[in-house]
Amino acid sequence: MADVRTALADVVGVEHVLVGDEVPPEYGRDESLGVPAERPGMVVRPADTGQVAEVLRVAAAHGLPVTARGAGTGLSGAAVPRPGGLVLSFERMNRILEIDTGGQVAVVQPGVTLAELDEATAAQGLVYPIFPGEGGASIGGTVATNAGGMHAVKEGVTRHHVLGLEAVLATGEVIRTGGRYVKTSTGYDLTQLIVGSEGTLALVTEATLRLRPRLPHRAGALAPFPDTEAVTAAVPRLTGGGLDPLVLEYVDVLAMAAITENAGLDLGVPQDVRDAAGAYLLVILENRSGERLDEDVQALGDELAALGAADVYVLAGDALRKLVTAREQAFWAARNAGANAIVDAVVPRAALARFFAAVPVVAGRHGALIGGCGHAGDGNVHLSVFQPDADAMERVMDELLATAVELGGTISGEHGIGREKTRHFRALEDPAKVELMRRIKTSFDPDGILNPGVLFG
Amino acid sequence: MADVRTALADVVGVEHVLVGDEVPPEYGRDESLGVPAERPGMVVRPADTGQVAEVLRVAAAHGLPVTARGAGTGLSGAAVPRPGGLVLSFERMNRILEIDTGGQVAVVQPGVTLAELDEATAAQGLVYPIFPGEGGASIGGTVATNAGGMHAVKEGVTRHHVLGLEAVLATGEVIRTGGRYVKTSTGYDLTQLIVGSEGTLALVTEATLRLRPRLPHRAGALAPFPDTEAVTAAVPRLTGGGLDPLVLEYVDVLAMAAITENAGLDLGVPQDVRDAAGAYLLVILENRSGERLDEDVQALGDELAALGAADVYVLAGDALRKLVTAREQAFWAARNAGANAIVDAVVPRAALARFFAAVPVVAGRHGALIGGCGHAGDGNVHLSVFQPDADAMERVMDELLATAVELGGTISGEHGIGREKTRHFRALEDPAKVELMRRIKTSFDPDGILNPGVLFG
Repeated sequence: MADVRTALADVVGVEHVLVGDEVPPEYGRDESLGVPAERPGMVVRPADTGQVAEVLRVAAAHGLPVTARGAGTGLSGAAVPRPGGLVLSFERMNRILEIDTGGQVAVVQPGVTLAELDEATAAQGLVYPIFPGEGGASIGGTVATNAGGMHAVKEGVTRHHVLGLEAVLATGEVIRTGGRYVKTSTGYDLTQLIVGSEGTLALVTEATLRLRPRLPHRAGALAPFPDTEAVTAAVPRLTGGGLDPLVLEYVDVLAMAAITENAGLDLGVPQDVRDAAGAYLLVILENRSGERLDEDVQALGDELAALGAADVYVLAGDALRKLVTAREQAFWAARNAGANAIVDAVVPRAALARFFAAVPVVAGRHGALIGGCGHAGDGNVHLSVFQPDADAMERVMDELLATAVELGGTISGEHGIGREKTRHFRALEDPAKVELMRRIKTSFDPDGILNPGVLFG
Repeated sequence: MADVRTALADVVGVEHVLVGDEVPPEYGRDESLGVPAERPGMVVRPADTGQVAEVLRVAAAHGLPVTARGAGTGLSGAAVPRPGGLVLSFERMNRILEIDTGGQVAVVQPGVTLAELDEATAAQGLVYPIFPGEGGASIGGTVATNAGGMHAVKEGVTRHHVLGLEAVLATGEVIRTGGRYVKTSTGYDLTQLIVGSEGTLALVTEATLRLRPRLPHRAGALAPFPDTEAVTAAVPRLTGGGLDPLVLEYVDVLAMAAITENAGLDLGVPQDVRDAAGAYLLVILENRSGERLDEDVQALGDELAALGAADVYVLAGDALRKLVTAREQAFWAARNAGANAIVDAVVPRAALARFFAAVPVVAGRHGALIGGCGHAGDGNVHLSVFQPDADAMERVMDELLATAVELGGTISGEHGIGREKTRHFRALEDPAKVELMRRIKTSFDPDGILNPGVLFG
């Protein structure tokens, strides 16, 4: 290890190589509830792409596993290193290189956070429309997990906004993929292959991102419904009706209580309405015209009432911001309440009701308390599972994820597989596909040094 | 070959295996201007996925190259078979399996045409928003080339609407990728890897496509500008201004003359305006409200005038449809006029003016006549090149495509590489990326039987 340290110090400078007890504990974990922290052997903090390439060459020469790290806000343990392995932290590669307003493109280094990019784009009337609920997440991390978030029902997910990448292969080769354009039909789409690959194929050192005009007017409606069936029946009407919602979230009563309490929020919903509610829909619209927005919110309210909402609370300005922030904090609310795991399953929208019907059955079978909220417009369900017994917890996760797959869905919508769900991925995914993915990984990373243990066990 | 014929006849029925002189000449070509027809050894027409898998097993066992064929409307020679090779035609796999209106999803076989899907979705108030100008194109072919078209500036390209695939690997293994959902972070995105791979990785036997609400109101404006500089300067203002154009095309005067003459179209633009015009912008808006559309078209007209348009001709209804159809026929207009090649280059929007400035220089240097129209909002430039001398033509193509790459663009936006541009792809693409793509191809197709000669020479 002394050799490696010297070699790495020659690349990045001795002050940017941390070894053994010098490594602060946060480099050993992310925010996953299910993956324990590990102790990396070393942390290295390169300053530029050339240094990343050199670090990977050193790691490859010594067969050292490499786990890339952005802000450490991931929820699946993909940034948890191998014991004794190398953490490559992008914290020093944190510059916004360009906001190209005419081209509506941002070029950023991976250590830039979503909040920083949001501030920079706002100044130009543009927006990078990925809001996974954690502004402290790094661009590199969100590219690696294909982060989604509340705006995905209108804007799509990270992969729809990544136009190009600079990335370093495990061999130290640097490639550039895509560019400042949406259309290309020039060979295989390496950009899209790297997005969502959780640091197992290549390390992203620069991203070219598509920006959208930032619309100035936003308002929404919160609608209590008698039960989740009514909520799920409303969803296709709202996505198909032309109002083009920016946000279309469901929140069950357990989650609503948790997030409002966590945020100290009073939504002004009377006690009797709250008592009768089975679940809530939160719908947010945006528009470049305030007048059109007002008309649309009116139409939305009528539509929600027609779809069976017990009432409709129109929200704008500060009240809306507070509720959105509270919803974004749902993970923390669940964690503070003692949740033992968070589910990130996806099912086809048409199967949402069947998935929701299965949840209390699974919960009852294993003595778990399960509640949640999620991206109803995308069929992306987040559930907080309370079951301190590890074995029972495993069975709950096994059954919920298997149910999602049986219904034509998938086991992760936006958090990624990481170390947390690699076992489920291997159990529930078609082995022919897993083997194909493994061959693809070998095309990028012949010695398997990039984030071993993620996806392939 | 007699063995192969018997084996294939056992799979698909003797009437669906055509050999030697039984093969009609159209199976040997697509619509590429630059790739001569070849004579395949055999054509096979499977009826279902199981038969496709069996056909590939037979081909692999005999080392027979396989070229997939949809409707044969491609423009890059990707459907031109190897001499003596096997054409696998999807003409019998032409069913729309489902239009899921609640899920806003269509599930189709690859032989379905865009026009057929458009008719079926229209009946449900939905639309599959890929309009590459050729309604006879098959879904399989458009997935293989990642087709774009005029609506891409608003709606994106094929890959943004393909949610999942069923595909057969060269080994005969059948995989299913993605599903009826937009969000997933569950391993590598095989869907996106197969989209645009031009039949070199796997054969698509079913596609799950995302549909959008079909907006009922559409109108546009045609604006003559003094020169292409004014046009290119206007583009970012129109994409960034919030009007969210469905179509944002430029048409130079040569192309405008060709397409209006080809269609017998009189746009009512006075002779003196036509004489003074250097290029035209065509902008189309759509809306679910006729009233809002009228307001937006008014705002669009004001914006175009402020951006230097000599005049603004508002178009709606039949007049708009006729112009769009005429524009869609631009390829045929160019072909009828004797064009020797069509360019499909992409440059960053901000580099459009520099690309346009280079075109007459290249044309002059090699005695070519070059004009065109294209997707200005996407930086996707189509040029018709008139130069009957093959060597001079080659140099024109070499220089135009190299210019696009130098400007940060790419050599094909939507037609694909095919056999036509494989030489340019090899010359202009980073060799490290080509080798990486070759390794990825081997992961899918270890014996290299799928469309050899495309991408890798």
